[in-house]
Formats: sequence, structure tokens, C-alpha cells
Amino acid sequence: MGRFQHLRHLPPSQLSQPRELCMAVSPLRSSVNLSRMVRLAGCSGIRDVHYCGGGKVDPNIARDAVDYVNVEFRRSLPPVLKKLKDAGFRLVGLEQTSNSCCIYDYRFQRRTALVIGSEREGLSQPALDLLDDVIEIPVYGLPASYNVVTATTMAVYEYCRQFPQG
Amino acid sequence: MGRFQHLRHLPPSQLSQPRELCMAVSPLRSSVNLSRMVRLAGCSGIRDVHYCGGGKVDPNIARDAVDYVNVEFRRSLPPVLKKLKDAGFRLVGLEQTSNSCCIYDYRFQRRTALVIGSEREGLSQPALDLLDDVIEIPVYGLPASYNVVTATTMAVYEYCRQFPQG
Repeated sequence: MGRFQHLRHLPPSQLSQPRELCMAVSPLRSSVNLSRMVRLAGCSGIRDVHYCGGGKVDPNIARDAVDYVNVEFRRSLPPVLKKLKDAGFRLVGLEQTSNSCCIYDYRFQRRTALVIGSEREGLSQPALDLLDDVIEIPVYGLPASYNVVTATTMAVYEYCRQFPQG
Repeated sequence: MGRFQHLRHLPPSQLSQPRELCMAVSPLRSSVNLSRMVRLAGCSGIRDVHYCGGGKVDPNIARDAVDYVNVEFRRSLPPVLKKLKDAGFRLVGLEQTSNSCCIYDYRFQRRTALVIGSEREGLSQPALDLLDDVIEIPVYGLPASYNVVTATTMAVYEYCRQFPQG
């Protein structure tokens, strides 16, 4: 018998405390991207997604995350960010900006809201003006930018790597 | 003027040597997943994707990666894996198996082929039997498994983090 045998569909890893990571997401053009974002959140143990746009979460894409993740639909990002800041979240944008920090060097605070821009325009200046930090993911080839969910996946992975137990 | 100002669409980071990471991918049910995989490869500086299935790369999804990445269509994974092993690549599967290593603890060899399974069945036993290592990504919530491209994104990110210059 081979050394590697399937163990698929194991139960999820237990967190020693609930994730203090949430997402605040700008309007997305694509409901597919929104739905993939919600699935990513669910798999990662994230319970709260604050989404400031239209569209619907497709249960065929988001799967069980539809029930596991609380998706709060809001109209505008800045008031959401202010509320999160008041609740003690560090507001961390994912964007290419001046004064951004390379994700490889960034140490997350446990209580963090990951702030995500739109597919084409990224984060608006009013949203950027409310952030504590901006992190940037190096791109090495073409196309010169990651899909919005791909970039978010990398940031969520890096957070979970730093807080593997929650 | 705010501290964070957009610098979108910067040119990609320069690698000090070409990426020695490639992908070997099992048949995917979804051409969207294949196309997203190719875009991920392109953005990450990966030049070679060995794909053992049907479907077409959609240029609306893969964008410039269509030209940047060489997608080699092959019929079966095991012969591809043998060839890659002969060429000095370490064969690293992404799967939940016995004797897998948590990705947080895994040190990649520079010359690595990331071996990816199908959406539902994962890697076949003949493919698993050829691997050097299997890495596993912790899942913390529901659904209990990442989308195949999401999992691949995390593994590619971890590799790039370990080899930020190539």
C-alpha cells in the first residue's frame, strides 16, 4: 500500500478561539467573485463579511458557507469601516498604494478587518483614508494583477498562517 | 493628501532567476477553474502548466497569461510526473492524505512541481504513488474543503513567500 492514502473530507481543524478576522468588501461587479469570497471566508473560519454592493451569494458556489458566514449587506463602505474601527478592528486594505507594506513582512493584529476593493477600481480614496495599514502582494508575471478573490485568498492564508489556532 | 494613494498596475516585481515552480494538473470539470489556474500561474511568474484533461483556457479569465504561460495539454498525469521527476523536480501534491505535511511547516525545494487533483476526486492513487511529498492546508470552517483554485493559490503564495526573488 502506498505511503499517501486519501483522507478527504476530514472535519475542519478546531480553532482555540473564534477567528477575529472579518472582511469588508467594496461593490463587486461579479456575483461569482462575491460567492467565491464567501466560500473562502467559510473555509477559513471567518464568520462576518460586510459587503457594500449588490448581487447575490450563489449557494452552488458558496456551498455551506451560505449558512456558516453572516453576510451583512450594506450601502457604503466608509460607515462600515468606522464601525469596525470603533469595535477595535485594525483596518487593513489590500491594494497597491503609496506607503503599503509587502505582505511577506506584515504582522497581522489578531482583531483585523481585511478591506477589499472592487475588481477594477480597487479601494476608493474615502475608504483608503480610513485604513490603518495597506498590504500589497508581489506580482511576478502577467497579467500584472491578481483576480480580487485570488488576492484575498492569499491575504486570508497569510493571516491563518500567523494565527493557526484562531 | 491621504497617506495611501493608489499605485495600481505597477509593473511586476523582477525575479532574480526564472521560477523553478511548475504545475501538473489533473483533469478539471470546469474550464473556468482551468482558466483561473492559468491566470494564477501567470501572475506568479510560473511559465509551465502541464494539464492532463480537456477544456479550453478562456482568455477573458486568463488574460495575458494566455501568452505568458505555456499550457501543455497531456493525456495522463503519471507519465508527466515521471518526466518532471527525471528533470529534477520535487513532486509535491496538494491533498488530504496519510503522511501529509501541514503547509505551515513545509519548506519547498526551489525546483518543484505542484501536483493538483481534480475538483471532486482529488489526486488518483497512481499519481499519489509518484509523489515525493503531500502538503495539506488546514480548513477551519464550512464548507470543509477549499475550491481547487483557492487551495492552489495558497500553495503558490506559500512558495513565492519562500522564494520571493525566484
